[in-house]
This record gives sequence, C-alpha cells and structure tokens, in this order.
Amino acid sequence: MGRPLITFLTDYGSGDEFVGVCHGVIARRCPGARVIDIAHGIPRQDVRAGALVLRDALAYVPAGVHLAVVDPTVGAAARRAVVLAPAEPGQLLVGPDNGLLWPAAERLGGVERAVDVGRSRERLQPVSATFHGRDVFAPVAAALAAGASLEDVGEPVDPDGLQRLRLPVARCEQGLVVAHVLRVDRFGNLALDATPEQLEQAGIRTGGRVSVEVQGRSHRALRALTFADAQGGELLLYEDASRAAALAVNGDSAAALLGAAPDAEVRLRPA
Amino acid sequence: MGRPLITFLTDYGSGDEFVGVCHGVIARRCPGARVIDIAHGIPRQDVRAGALVLRDALAYVPAGVHLAVVDPTVGAAARRAVVLAPAEPGQLLVGPDNGLLWPAAERLGGVERAVDVGRSRERLQPVSATFHGRDVFAPVAAALAAGASLEDVGEPVDPDGLQRLRLPVARCEQGLVVAHVLRVDRFGNLALDATPEQLEQAGIRTGGRVSVEVQGRSHRALRALTFADAQGGELLLYEDASRAAALAVNGDSAAALLGAAPDAEVRLRPA
Amino acid sequence: MGRPLITFLTDYGSGDEFVGVCHGVIARRCPGARVIDIAHGIPRQDVRAGALVLRDALAYVPAGVHLAVVDPTVGAAARRAVVLAPAEPGQLLVGPDNGLLWPAAERLGGVERAVDVGRSRERLQPVSATFHGRDVFAPVAAALAAGASLEDVGEPVDPDGLQRLRLPVARCEQGLVVAHVLRVDRFGNLALDATPEQLEQAGIRTGGRVSVEVQGRSHRALRALTFADAQGGELLLYEDASRAAALAVNGDSAAALLGAAPDAEVRLRPA
Repeated sequence: MGRPLITFLTDYGSGDEFVGVCHGVIARRCPGARVIDIAHGIPRQDVRAGALVLRDALAYVPAGVHLAVVDPTVGAAARRAVVLAPAEPGQLLVGPDNGLLWPAAERLGGVERAVDVGRSRERLQPVSATFHGRDVFAPVAAALAAGASLEDVGEPVDPDGLQRLRLPVARCEQGLVVAHVLRVDRFGNLALDATPEQLEQAGIRTGGRVSVEVQGRSHRALRALTFADAQGGELLLYEDASRAAALAVNGDSAAALLGAAPDAEVRLRPA
Repeated sequence: MGRPLITFLTDYGSGDEFVGVCHGVIARRCPGARVIDIAHGIPRQDVRAGALVLRDALAYVPAGVHLAVVDPTVGAAARRAVVLAPAEPGQLLVGPDNGLLWPAAERLGGVERAVDVGRSRERLQPVSATFHGRDVFAPVAAALAAGASLEDVGEPVDPDGLQRLRLPVARCEQGLVVAHVLRVDRFGNLALDATPEQLEQAGIRTGGRVSVEVQGRSHRALRALTFADAQGGELLLYEDASRAAALAVNGDSAAALLGAAPDAEVRLRPA
Repeated sequence: MGRPLITFLTDYGSGDEFVGVCHGVIARRCPGARVIDIAHGIPRQDVRAGALVLRDALAYVPAGVHLAVVDPTVGAAARRAVVLAPAEPGQLLVGPDNGLLWPAAERLGGVERAVDVGRSRERLQPVSATFHGRDVFAPVAAALAAGASLEDVGEPVDPDGLQRLRLPVARCEQGLVVAHVLRVDRFGNLALDATPEQLEQAGIRTGGRVSVEVQGRSHRALRALTFADAQGGELLLYEDASRAAALAVNGDSAAALLGAAPDAEVRLRPA
C-alpha cells in the first residue's frame, strides 16, 4: 500500500513527449508516487469525452489524486486551474475548471472544497502559455500526492462557481426511451445516456428488434449482448463496457449510418 | 526483487482507456504489483500474432504472471477463460482459451495444470459482455500476483482439452527450404517459420542471392544481415529480432510485392 | 528516493513490442529500477528530433540514466554504442554514437568521460543485427542503474572523437532575426532556433505583425501567445513549450504553407 497514487488522463496522444515530461515532473516532486495512465488518446479538446472517461474509470482505479488535462482554452485568463475535493475521502481531482472534472466529482459525492491553483507556489516558473499540464497541473498533483494540503497548493474558491458540464438526460415515455448521444468513439460507436434498465422498462428485450429514430429517420436495430450476435452491417443496440446503452454497426460506423453527433436525440422503442 | 510482476499484452490499442482501466483494476487488487506492458498494438483479433509476440517476449521479461487478451469470441459461452501453469516454475499465463497462450506455454515447458476462471470469485461483478480483460482476466492475474493459488481463482480443467494453436512448420528438402508465413507486421514484413540454421543447411549464404517462390511466382532476394544492406525496393531475406527468417522490402511492403498472407508457402533456395 | 531511475526515448512507436521488451530486459537486470518513458514516437530515424526532445526533457525529468535509441545505422560497424558521463553528477547517457546524445550532454555540462559498450559484457548474446535497444543499450542502462561503473560496462574512448550533432544557430541583424527550422512536428509546426529574447531584440512584439521570409517568398504572421489568438488558417509566430520561437498555422500545416524543411533559413522582422 503506502505509495501515493496519481491517475493521469489527457488528450496529448502517445506520439509526443508531453505525457513523458509530465511523468518526469511528477517523479521529481514526489519520487514515491505511482502513476496510472488512464488514457491519453481522448479526442483532441473533447472535454466531454474526457469527462466521461474519467468519471467511468473511477470505479476501477484506486483512490488517489486524479490528474486530467483536456484544455482547449489553456492560457486564457478566464479559465481557472483547480483542485476539487469531493465528498469521498482520499480522492482529489486536478485539472482545468472547464467541466472536465465535474462528472467525476459528482460521482464521488459532489465537490466539498475547491482551490484555484493558477498561481500555486508549486507551479514551474516560467509557466508556458500552452503546456499547463507540465507547468501547473502535474506539479500540483505531485505535491498533493506528497502530502501537501489544499491550502498549501492554492487559494480557496466557492464550489458553486465551478464550471459544470451539461449532459443530456434520457427519459422514459410510454413504450419509448428518449435518449441522446453522449459520445462518439473512434469506431463510430455511439454511447447513449440511457441505461439498460430504461430499455427494459420500455419493453426492449435482448434478442428483439428495436426501432431507432434519429434526425427524423427511422432505422431497425437488434438488441444484442455482443457484437458477435449481429450480422455484418447490422445496427446493434447493446450495453457497453461502461454499462450504458450504445449503438454500433458491426464492421462499420453507426455515427455515419445514423448521421448522429453528440447530443442528437435518439428515440428507441420495440419494433 | 520482492515485487510481484505482471506482464500485459492485448489488442486494445493505445488510444482508449481499456489498458489504463485494467492497470487500475490490478492496482486495486494487488497494490504492490509491477506491470510491464509488452504490447497493446497487436492487430485487432489476431490471436496468432499475439501468441507469437507473447511467446517470443518471454525470453526477455522476468518470470511472473503473464496476462494476455486477444479475444475475438469474448462473451461466447464456448470460449473459456483460463490460467495455465507451465512446467517452468514461477510462471503463470492468464487469458482466453483460444490458443493465444499455447505457444508461450510450450516455450515454458508445456502446461502442467490449468484452471477455468470464467466463474472465478475474483472477477468483478457484474461481468460485462465485452470487456473480460477488466472484469475477469486482470483481477485474476492480480490475485495470482498477490499470492492466490490456482485453486483460489478457478476450477481445474484437463490440460489436454485446451485449445491449441496450429502453426506451420518449415522443412528442409534438397537445397531448398519449404517455409511458411507466420505473421505479417504493419510494415508488410513477413516473418517465416524457418530458422537461420535451415537457410544455412539449404546453402543460402549471407550476401548471396536467393530464389523466393510464392503463389507459383518466383522472385529474387538478397540474403542480408540488415535492411541497410539492400537497395531501395529490393527484396531482402534476413534474420529478424526474434531470430526467425523474414522477408522485407526496404521502404516497401513485402506482403504486397509477394501477395503473401499468413500460412502462405514460401520456397527458398540459392539463386 | 532510493530507486534508481532510467528515462527511455526511442523511435520504436507504440504499436509493437519493442518498447515493452526493453522494459522487460531492464526489469531482469535491475528489478528496482523505475523507468520513465519520455517518448517513443520520435519520427523514424530522425536523430535530430530525438536529440532535441531528449535535451529539452532533461529539465523536467529526475537525474539518472537516460537511455535513447534512434539508430538509422544500427548494425553498421562504424556506428559505436556509447555511454557518456557529462559534467553534471548523477547523469549518464546511453545510446548510439550518432549525435543523438550530444545536445543532451552539452546541456549537462559537456562530456567528461565516455565508454564504448559495443562489446560490453552486459549485452545479451547473441546480439541481433537490428535490435540493439534490446541487446545492447537496455541491458547496459540497467547495469548502470544497478550500480555498475563505466569501466564495468565498456571500454574508455576519447570524448573528442564522439559524433556531434550540428545544429543551426540563429543570429540577430539590424531589425531582423535570421533563424532556421530546427524541427518539424507531426502537425507541421516549425520549431526554430531563435529565442523569444532574439525576437524581442529585433523589435517583434506580442500582438504585432511579422514578416516571415522563407525560400525567397514572404509571408505575414501574427506574433501571438497561444494558438487561440489566431484566426483559422492564419500563420502564427509563438513561443513553444520548449521556449523556442515556432511557426504554426491554426488548423493547418506551417511546413506545407511555407515549404520549409529542417535547416531552412527563416528571416523574421516586424511588418
């Protein structure tokens, strides 16, 4: 046990040295820290995708300091750098105040305290205009892992003023689920905001056919357990690994087939 | 020494959170474990490529728990999840029973004992239909690294009933090596099942010309030590880093030039 | 502290097992070592890009053994494998003697001692023709991390005979900076050899317009702090995260727009 843990999520990609340099910064400030890379392939500047991956990963990673950087407005004066302390003890979230950390904080019981670390004494000087992951967020996360308190690393801010992330919410109507696209992955699979329980409630059963209405056009899908249950080219409604309802086409892009982007409404009913 | 070691190989790729989430699962169950990522870029669902990389990596990684997931039939009832204990002490192989682990087990002296972990008490409930790496294999591997016994994590199965991986076998005839394509890498290089000793036996000498017959068509290659020995566009027969005979075209794809896929017969003789 | 540290940089990419196998080799020879991957996506065989990334990363990673492999002439008799001990204590550089390590060594105070490790007793036998990262460099780095001395791992060589890396040097003329392209990244951004101080000296101010002359053609750029300050398609002169002047086009390739490759002269003046 003993070793402090930092998880790390960004949209930096795996080709460049950005992730490695942040690991170096962490190792200098907190040599004993263990770093688990959750993902660095978040689509560039896609705050919502990063927020959802971070939130969903929490159930599987140890408690600790969760460092996340997807930061389209890095360098802008209006974007704060923050640490959030949620209700669940032993958990801290470090990153830009742009909604990225919000769903994770809610999953951990909501934000109890927050500090602004934009002028933290832990940051590396001079702070670059574009690489706050290295100059602000990584050193602050490492300091926290090394035992620094919130007060040590930043100035208190009112949690009510934090940037939230607006996510659509699926609802059940009579024999119908009105869902929305939460996220499109790089295979064109569409994660929805509906739960398997909502599908069940609308009478959509595994193995049955489903009517999928998107952008005013109607499609037929199979409610299946896995990709292997569908024919090539067939539209599939399944429960993805995050336990969310999802649409996919075996061997093709559901996003292209349905012409659907994040937030698009998807009406699901038994067919 | 002390710290238990897990190696990790998949076809999950490096863009998504799948690998990172498995690291998290391991860290929760066995905080002291050290994880070495062998490769996560195995071509999607290419069990044979994964099996060969795993087998060949064993000579270079420490003994420990080897976790491997290339799993085209994940979720199918017929596909078992297993742990294999080979003859070599201190080694365990964890993954789907689809041949992926077989060549590695043979390299480690053959399977002595095996358990089915599909209903392991270590798995994460509810087990998803598609992500057994996270829900079954990673927690089982972590439990073993933490000191659990085979009996603790699964039900004994007869090693004779395990899925094997059929690999072609090169043979020498008079002045000829009848080889086969084992694997095509992403550069179009072709790894063969022939050894440098077999080439030698057929009279194929470094620096000499070689006749390469594939799909009824004949090509000329240079038997060389490194890529640098060949002209651009020239076909090259060399010993790859796994000590296997291999065909490549400097700056191009040997697979495309020869029209060769895995298992294709390749007849090699001095030219 | 305690745990010896190895940083690791290559052009091996993240898809194959090359990096993972080297991690395995290190863990066998020095189980206590901690390895920080700086980057493995250096453009293939681009020694200069690797050298610059390594040099610039040193300011952010802990002191230790720095293992770097970008090695276009691997296997050639003329290319030596070396360890360099720079003036700064606690630092060692391991890799091919092709200039890759040179800028890093200079940054660390210059080479004080060097050994040739091409026939090191630490190398793995038989040494392959193509994978010296695994067979020579990784085991030597691990031995050094485990406490071996330079004499233990190789034969002394004269530092004056080491391969250097020639880099262009920007100069200021009256109201003008004569700079050069140091490196083109995968987005087509151009890192220059000029410093922000040199731009300042030539009267180029943040927010102002700049004349950029390349290949005899003149372009207009905005001197900006971040990408966000520019319009889509606009040419931008900014300070990159390594504190070098750089040219970019928001949402496009500056290299393509300017037709500029490494070493191209770039004349910058207020417009």
